[in-house]
Amino acid sequence: MAVYTEVSDEALNAFLALYDIGEVVSFKGIAEGVENSNFLLRTDRSQFILTLYEKRVRASDLPFFVRLMEHLAWRGVNCPQPVRNRSGEALGQLAGRPAAIVTFLDGIWVRRPRVGHCAAVGGALAQMHLAGADFPLKRGNALSLEAWLALFHAAEARADEVAPGLTQEIMEELAFLQANWPRGLPSGVIHADLFNDNVFFLGDKLSGLIDFYFACNDAFAYDLAICLSAWCFEPDNAFNVSKGKAMIEDYARVRPLGAAEVEALPTLARGAAMRFMLTRLVDWFNVPVGAKVAPKNPLEYRDKLRFHQRIKTAADYGLQM
Amino acid sequence: MAVYTEVSDEALNAFLALYDIGEVVSFKGIAEGVENSNFLLRTDRSQFILTLYEKRVRASDLPFFVRLMEHLAWRGVNCPQPVRNRSGEALGQLAGRPAAIVTFLDGIWVRRPRVGHCAAVGGALAQMHLAGADFPLKRGNALSLEAWLALFHAAEARADEVAPGLTQEIMEELAFLQANWPRGLPSGVIHADLFNDNVFFLGDKLSGLIDFYFACNDAFAYDLAICLSAWCFEPDNAFNVSKGKAMIEDYARVRPLGAAEVEALPTLARGAAMRFMLTRLVDWFNVPVGAKVAPKNPLEYRDKLRFHQRIKTAADYGLQM
Repeated sequence: MAVYTEVSDEALNAFLALYDIGEVVSFKGIAEGVENSNFLLRTDRSQFILTLYEKRVRASDLPFFVRLMEHLAWRGVNCPQPVRNRSGEALGQLAGRPAAIVTFLDGIWVRRPRVGHCAAVGGALAQMHLAGADFPLKRGNALSLEAWLALFHAAEARADEVAPGLTQEIMEELAFLQANWPRGLPSGVIHADLFNDNVFFLGDKLSGLIDFYFACNDAFAYDLAICLSAWCFEPDNAFNVSKGKAMIEDYARVRPLGAAEVEALPTLARGAAMRFMLTRLVDWFNVPVGAKVAPKNPLEYRDKLRFHQRIKTAADYGLQM
Repeated sequence: MAVYTEVSDEALNAFLALYDIGEVVSFKGIAEGVENSNFLLRTDRSQFILTLYEKRVRASDLPFFVRLMEHLAWRGVNCPQPVRNRSGEALGQLAGRPAAIVTFLDGIWVRRPRVGHCAAVGGALAQMHLAGADFPLKRGNALSLEAWLALFHAAEARADEVAPGLTQEIMEELAFLQANWPRGLPSGVIHADLFNDNVFFLGDKLSGLIDFYFACNDAFAYDLAICLSAWCFEPDNAFNVSKGKAMIEDYARVRPLGAAEVEALPTLARGAAMRFMLTRLVDWFNVPVGAKVAPKNPLEYRDKLRFHQRIKTAADYGLQM
């Protein structure tokens, strides 16, 4: 979340007139995240998040995201619920962008997760995977194996400016992933971006998941692999096996992992690290003017990738086998 | 307001334990403004703004700002009220920065002010000037005439990159201001930065003033001159005399302007335009890494300065004389 687009008073008032949510008493841009413009909207009745979808989100994907949040909320996942306007629409137009209002979720994202947080995230991820099982819409993963080569080409010419030898290292890893990427794993709707700023806690209790704008259909275990890298490394990029164990165990308690998923986990984790290294690398050279966010360091994920390359089996993540 | 400093959960909890304001339920960085890091803090009792004072604010000035907000609130000015902790302190330390919690003010800042907004700002500014009359602390204006030359030198080498001839134009204007700056005008505590993002409205009614971190002792009419440039120009940098007239009239209704103040207004407005052009020019070449804010265009104030240079008397601002 961030603010890329300014909203005029007139435009805001005209947009809100379509809704039955009360009178505005406060409207503030939020300085978090990277993809869309987000505003905290308070009315005399409740609090909401108003999101303007910026160019990186395809308008044709928005119905998938919005209906997914509705579906998951109905199935008991604590996540923002899209607010429908008087015409029953959850998606509108504001300041030249597609826009939606969702309910406000209490909670704070954890800057330095501890073992208990990682366990809770594992459990909530599995719950989300089960809750999405009967969601009828489909969306392919736009940032899967097929897309990584294109991302690499977008950054290739300057990758070695970030670290000498990075180009070669990426090319070799992409070749490995192409040859070894697991197929036919249990699949369904995954979050695909469940980083710590997308999970809220109240005290030690997980209070909700947000930001479903990378959600898509893909292997469940790939989502878990993303979370292992996002949550279970220390600030010095060393893997914390207690965190990994806690996350995988609490995941498997809600949704047991099959043998093929366990076997595939190290390769999926290499792919997940590659995916975030590549998007960060592209962003590194393409900071939008007025973005109000600093680009994230791609080398954090180069280091995580190297760890996953050294892993022999999922036991090295803490999994009891 | 923006976010320059991350606050860890442990640090936040330790800081909030010093206060009697309830349990945190939400904590979000705000993407507005430029000077400090601001977070919207919601507890189970109320809403607050938590501010971390970044390096541009001198720690020794903080007691002035915090006590001024208390003083003005007591005198009926709608502004954030510092919250004192259990030890009676309104200022503490968080994430290595001085920090304060203030009450949350309802309202929305107006992106495109109309005449009525300008009138309300004039009235509120005069009310603030009267309310501050018996405030006992003093703080010199760190961005007055004496400081402008130093600011210019900080940007001089690259000023012509922004616009050819800008260096020469600034030097000539600084010479004029040095020779003609009005002295001995009625003075007291001024806001010194009352731009539209620092004034909140609920509907058409002004609901409060925020961001007193440039407040200082200086000529009241200089504060009005700042507001004329901040509020009464159209997006194409043309002065709107209806807005100027409304602002000055509503100011003078609350605090009548003396003849010397009226006469000085065009020169004060040139100085005000110079002050904002210069700080924007310095910021233009010094965007902090991770600032999450885009620098503001200095040339907007070059154009406003040129308008004020052409002004003969305050009648050209709409003042009935």
